[in-house]
Order: sequence, then C-alpha cells, then structure tokens
Amino acid sequence: MAGPWRGLRRARGWAALAGLRARTDKFGGVSVNLGELRGSPRLERAAFGRWLRESVSQWRDEGRVAVWLHVPILQSSLVAVAASQGFAFHHAEQGSSTLTLWLGEEPSRLPGFATHQLGVAGAVLDERTGKVLVVQDRNKTINAWKFPGGLSNPGEDIGDTAVREVFEETGIKSEFKSILSIRQQHKHPGAFGKSDMYIICRMEPSSFHISFCQHECLRCEWMDLEELARTENATPITSNVAKLLLFGYREGFDRIDITMREFPAVYTGLFYKLYHRELPESYRNMT
Amino acid sequence: MAGPWRGLRRARGWAALAGLRARTDKFGGVSVNLGELRGSPRLERAAFGRWLRESVSQWRDEGRVAVWLHVPILQSSLVAVAASQGFAFHHAEQGSSTLTLWLGEEPSRLPGFATHQLGVAGAVLDERTGKVLVVQDRNKTINAWKFPGGLSNPGEDIGDTAVREVFEETGIKSEFKSILSIRQQHKHPGAFGKSDMYIICRMEPSSFHISFCQHECLRCEWMDLEELARTENATPITSNVAKLLLFGYREGFDRIDITMREFPAVYTGLFYKLYHRELPESYRNMT
Repeated sequence: MAGPWRGLRRARGWAALAGLRARTDKFGGVSVNLGELRGSPRLERAAFGRWLRESVSQWRDEGRVAVWLHVPILQSSLVAVAASQGFAFHHAEQGSSTLTLWLGEEPSRLPGFATHQLGVAGAVLDERTGKVLVVQDRNKTINAWKFPGGLSNPGEDIGDTAVREVFEETGIKSEFKSILSIRQQHKHPGAFGKSDMYIICRMEPSSFHISFCQHECLRCEWMDLEELARTENATPITSNVAKLLLFGYREGFDRIDITMREFPAVYTGLFYKLYHRELPESYRNMT
Repeated sequence: MAGPWRGLRRARGWAALAGLRARTDKFGGVSVNLGELRGSPRLERAAFGRWLRESVSQWRDEGRVAVWLHVPILQSSLVAVAASQGFAFHHAEQGSSTLTLWLGEEPSRLPGFATHQLGVAGAVLDERTGKVLVVQDRNKTINAWKFPGGLSNPGEDIGDTAVREVFEETGIKSEFKSILSIRQQHKHPGAFGKSDMYIICRMEPSSFHISFCQHECLRCEWMDLEELARTENATPITSNVAKLLLFGYREGFDRIDITMREFPAVYTGLFYKLYHRELPESYRNMT
C-alpha cells in the first residue's frame, strides 16, 4: 500500500478512535468498548497502539486504578496490541473478549471471572419399593454405579438441572425434594482447570418406566437402596450419599434434607433460592 | 514490504503451520495449539486462513465433531481469522484464549466454561455472649447489617474463604464449623452476567478484638444474635440465617449444621470436601 493511502488509512483510524467513549465506574476504573468502532474502517494496529498508550498514560495521571477493554472477536488483532502493552484476558465468550490492565500500585483488586462449574445429580428414590435409580456411564474405564446427573446449563436452578438430567439420561420424570450433599473439587480436568461444585439432590419419581440414553449410559436400573449403600461397585460419593439417603429413608428425611425457600431479590425483581435446614415457623416469622 | 519479502514471509508462514499438531480426543474432537508456533516468524493471516479452512474441511471429512483452537494472546490476530470461519470464544484467561467450532449436524454437545462465581460469608458466633459478628459495607446505598464475606479465590476451599474474608474485613480470627445456607442467583450483575453461589458458614471465633477494614466496611460490631434476627436493618438473607443460627444456638447446632467430611479423590490423589447432614457412625461404616 503506497504512502498516501497509508496516510489516509491512519487518518481514518484516528477518526474512528476519536469516537470511542471511556466510561468510568465507581471503583475507580475506566472501561472502553471497541464495539463502538463498528461500521468504521478497520483500525490500523499502529494507530490503535498509539491511542491506547496515550490514553492509558492519561488515565493513570487522572488516578484511575484499572482499564477494562471490551473487544469484538473480529477485532481481535487489537487484543494482541493491547497485550503488548500489558493487558491480559479477564474473560471471553462467544463473540467478544474482555481485557484488563491494573494501574494501581497495590496488588490488583479486580474481581475475577466465574471460578466454578456446577454439576447436579438426582437420587430418585421410589419410597414404595425402597429402590433408587442408578446408572453406569458409557466411556468410563471403571463402570461403577452412580446417580444420573450432569452440568447445569447457564441460568438453570439446581433442582431444574436434576430434573432435566435425570430425564435425559433415564427417561424417568421426577420432582426436586431437597439437596443432600455438596462437593467442591479444585483444578478439575473436566472443568478446564477450574473448580467443580457437585450437588446431589433427593428426588421423588413421578414415572417409573426406564428408557435410558444409549449415548451416555451403559446400564440403568432401579436398585435396592440398601444394596447400593453396601456395594463396592459404586463411586465413593454415590456410596456415601446412598448411606445418607438410607438413614433418611429409615429415620425420616428431615434428618438429611437441606430444603429450599424462595425469596425476592432486592435489586432485580427476580427471585432467588436459598437452601438450608428446615426452620420452624415460630422462628421464620419472628420480628 | 516488497514482493520477494512478502513471498518469503508467506513461505515461512506455511513452514510454521506445517509444524502444528492436531490432537484428537476421545469425544471425537480435534485440538490445535497455536502456541506451538512460538519462536517461528509471525504468521501471515492469509496463510493461516487458508490452512485453517483446508484443515477444517479435512477434519470434517474424517468425521470429527469439534475443533478446539488454543491461541496465545499475542497471536490474537489469528482469532479474528478463525472467527470469520465460524469459530467463537469458549473462554480466555490471562495470556491465552480457546476457541471452538462445532462440526456435528446435531446441536453442540461441547461442555461450557465455568458458570458460577462463589461468595462465602462467615456467621461468627461467640457462644459465651450470644453475640454475632456483623458489618455494614462502605459504598452501599442501603447500609444494612450483614455477615463479613467475599468472593473465593481460585482453588480456595469454602471454609478457607470464610476464615480469610472474616479476618480481612474485621480482624477476627475464626474457625469453620459448618455450612448454614446456600443461595443461587442467576444473571448476576457483579458476576459479569454469570450465576452467583453464595454460602454462609457457621464460624467459631478464636479472637474477639475487632479491627475492621476501613476500605470495605463502614461499621463492624458484635451484635446480640436475637437482635440481629429481629432487626429490619439487615439484608433478607442475613435476617434468615440469623433466625436459623438462633434456632441452632437454642436447640442445638446439629439442627442446622451441614457438616464437612474429606475424601480422597479417585484420579488426582488430592482430597475433596463433601458437605451434608451428620451421618451416624453405624451408617458411615456399613459395608
């Protein structure tokens, strides 16, 4: 590309950059969305690099502590430019990424991105027969019995994941009753090195005919709960939760249940779910 | 850059690409790490684009269902090239991003990235006095009493987050006793639109002199637990957990506690923590 064109492209780059707005937040940070460049000619990397260097210098002088840069995926060549000036990925999904640069002298106080994936399984107990629904995974080296379950979808409530996963894997319809156990595991290989939270729920079946997913499961059956609690052919967590469920089945589920209540969220107008031990009415209503 | 140089650069680009290894996984996917290009001359975008198009076409013919592309942040201009061929971000952190393209005809079965941030608070109860440790946040429009707490660090256990956050905010040393409640909230503004899991733990103090963080807290005090359970000047979740804690304080903590046990993890040789209701020895040891 010859001189004049190059000059024009640079001029266009600067013009596009002039339209960018830097928004400040109440934590002393500043945020720029490169998506606002959409529709303008593709930015020259060098022009963006100069603009960014000068802007960061100015923000630093103004006492800003952090810079957030939102970048549409098709403009990712600008990510490399920002990285060469010390920016790093905060997170990215689908069509955009977010980079940060901490300007403060003390260690960064920037909040991290999501740290946990959430898996939910359902222990579906048929109280009339004392049998519980178990599966064996296909594609596993050790074919131990476990409760059907899987990863929760974004925005999905714990009980809803249990209902969905139980149905997808086994064809059994069920209803959420309580949480039985919560497991936390870090640096999980199946979670891209992040942490894994795994919750097992107590479920009540409303259908009983098994039609299991051949993709995911090798076997699926209604197994006597006491047999599951005693067998060595089950994952340790399944074995433990089977013992807990057996205790509850014999002595009362109130001994093992972590029950759910729903509350209005203050700011959003939505509801949130709170799980804890059953609280007597007299305490719930005290003021 | 004149003709011959340009040609040479392209040739170098192809040579560098020839060194890339495509690894297959047991789920039918194929994975390429552009970090293996390190040390070789910067790739020309056009050369990479041609290589990627031809490679994807070949993987599709071979019956692969998905492509994973790992890209060092300084090579992010290649992200834009991949995006123009349908790739999207799976996730990114610090110095690299991961993109995916689903090749299957059915809906994508690729696992998502972490969906939850985890916050942990500590309800520190001095059993001798019946007083509990509460704070009011600085920078909040409504200054309601709450339990000290904050986001867990990557790889940090629930109880450890509670101990750390209580100490950082109030100067009080404490020990984890049990989980009291779990709240799940979606599309959380403070979690970059992801879900928030918020756990409140019962803690036992081992020091009593408050020295609170002026950065984060406006007020901090030991408050009578019954007063906290009755006051309107507390967040709804604080109020509920105060009532629960009061119930436990009067009737026995075994009525409210979700206790912790540690187990060896099968594959990693590490330990994981499982939280559930207390299980009698006779059940724990049954075989």
